[in-house]
Amino acid sequence: MPGFSARPPALPTILLDDAVVRITRWDFEPGAATGHHVHGLGYVVVPMTDCHFLIEDAAGERRVTSKAGEVYRREAGVEHNVVNGGDAPMSFIEIEYK
Amino acid sequence: MPGFSARPPALPTILLDDAVVRITRWDFEPGAATGHHVHGLGYVVVPMTDCHFLIEDAAGERRVTSKAGEVYRREAGVEHNVVNGGDAPMSFIEIEYK
Repeated sequence: MPGFSARPPALPTILLDDAVVRITRWDFEPGAATGHHVHGLGYVVVPMTDCHFLIEDAAGERRVTSKAGEVYRREAGVEHNVVNGGDAPMSFIEIEYK
Repeated sequence: MPGFSARPPALPTILLDDAVVRITRWDFEPGAATGHHVHGLGYVVVPMTDCHFLIEDAAGERRVTSKAGEVYRREAGVEHNVVNGGDAPMSFIEIEYK
C-alpha cells in the first residue's frame, strides 16, 4: 500500500511468572509499539534504558521521557498504546502483581 | 585498630513509597554492605548493573552473580547481609509490596 508503514511490534520476554508476579522485559526498536492494550493488573515499570515514550490513549497522544531507573507505578485499568518515540532502542521491565 | 577495615554502607534511595509499594535503589561501591537485615515484606530485585553479590546469612557465605536485568523475587522473612563482592560499583532496584 503506497505510503503505508506499520509499526514494528515491541518484543515481550517473560522473566518470571509465578503465584505473585508476572515480570516482563519489553524491548522496542525505534518506532516499535505494544499495540493498544488494557492492563488487567496493577504494575510497576523500571526503565532499563532512557525511554522516550509516545503514549496513545483515549485522551490523545503525548510524549513522556523516563530516564533509566526512573520507576513508576500504575493501577489496573490503564488502556493505551506504548510506542518508542525516540531514535534509539529502549527497554523496560514491567512487574505486575497478581 | 591495626588491620581493621569496616565495610562502607550501601546507599539506599527511596524512589517511591505509597500505599502499595516501597521502591528503593541501592548503590554499592566495591565492598559496601547493607548490614544484616530482615525483610518484613516480599520483594522483587531488578539489577541495574551486573551484581556480584556476596551474601552472608545463617547458612554461611556464598557468592551469586546476577546480570543487569536478571530479576528475582523473594518472600518476606529473608535475613541476610548483602555485600558488593565485585570490584566495580553495583546497583539494583528493590520493589517491596505492602
